[in-house]
Amino acid sequence: MPPRDETEQRRQQIIDGALDAFARLGFDRATNRDIARAAGIASPGLIYHYFKDKTDLLYQVIRERMPLVPIVDAVERLGDEPPEVVLPRLGERLAQALDQPLTVAIGKIVMGEVLRHPQLARVISEIGPGRAINALAAYLARQMELGRLRRTDPQIAARLLIGPMMSYFFSREVLNQPEARAIDARTMAAEAVAHFLRSMAPES
Amino acid sequence: MPPRDETEQRRQQIIDGALDAFARLGFDRATNRDIARAAGIASPGLIYHYFKDKTDLLYQVIRERMPLVPIVDAVERLGDEPPEVVLPRLGERLAQALDQPLTVAIGKIVMGEVLRHPQLARVISEIGPGRAINALAAYLARQMELGRLRRTDPQIAARLLIGPMMSYFFSREVLNQPEARAIDARTMAAEAVAHFLRSMAPES
Repeated sequence: MPPRDETEQRRQQIIDGALDAFARLGFDRATNRDIARAAGIASPGLIYHYFKDKTDLLYQVIRERMPLVPIVDAVERLGDEPPEVVLPRLGERLAQALDQPLTVAIGKIVMGEVLRHPQLARVISEIGPGRAINALAAYLARQMELGRLRRTDPQIAARLLIGPMMSYFFSREVLNQPEARAIDARTMAAEAVAHFLRSMAPES
Repeated sequence: MPPRDETEQRRQQIIDGALDAFARLGFDRATNRDIARAAGIASPGLIYHYFKDKTDLLYQVIRERMPLVPIVDAVERLGDEPPEVVLPRLGERLAQALDQPLTVAIGKIVMGEVLRHPQLARVISEIGPGRAINALAAYLARQMELGRLRRTDPQIAARLLIGPMMSYFFSREVLNQPEARAIDARTMAAEAVAHFLRSMAPES
């Protein structure tokens, strides 16, 4: 067994190779050999010394490389700072993440994967989009209780906030819509947050 | 050449066969033989008597079977009725369409297709999602000029309105997220429209 540092370095190397192979060839078409070659490791068999299976490898790619994941972590740790403080900051971070090529590449791998393998969708959602919505809904529910936001279904409220950014991203990167490409991510995020805060102001 | 009625009947039959084959096997994997068999026609060659190529067949499936398309047509024909009248009606129609199995089936075919073939994305967007956004943006721009909505970028406003429904649909049908499945489409649409109208009320 190589020392711990070397093990981790090898693991990271395989994650990078897998990301490269999945992005170029698609998750299904990328073989162990493709992944090993892209990772610069000698034997494809070595991959499964570090990862349970190809699906586990995909999860780890998402967890360790997807720029949206640290934002979801941040949402889970949101304290009780008011929405006018927290949400613009979150919008800014989200806009920055959506502009990163890694977000686009991993986002497309994940979308393709969940479309082809519906049985994996729920698990993937639980480490990414579903976790984000639930964390946001929990924060919004607390703010509603504190009287800082209009009371409504927190799950619906979370979608009202995040939905415009997600569908903007899909139109821009997947549909390649010229009108979406013309909108700057930070402007879109700032407008989405301002729109949400205006509409969700507590009834006076 | 068969008489006109028969030609049209045959064409519709092939569209149904293609939809069935694409949904079961995927656009790429469905062969001419699969489509012919599903359509109940004797010769695969006959398909290209009616359609230019497989991509043309996909376009016609979307145009003639996708329940969202008549809604986009309706948005393009929107007159100058005020948003408080028009948008709740539109939300209701959208919710009904999202609950139809055909919307789910064709929506998944289209998403898979644009992910695999980015060069087709823009054309597909122009007959569907892109056209919807542009038609809605044009309506909203007129309403802003009439002083009935707060002035902002109409392209952004259209996404604020439609985004929550689109990402709800994606979470529900593609990610299979239990919290999204628990939300009724009509409730989601009504909340999204009410949210939009509250926030977009003209500044007084």
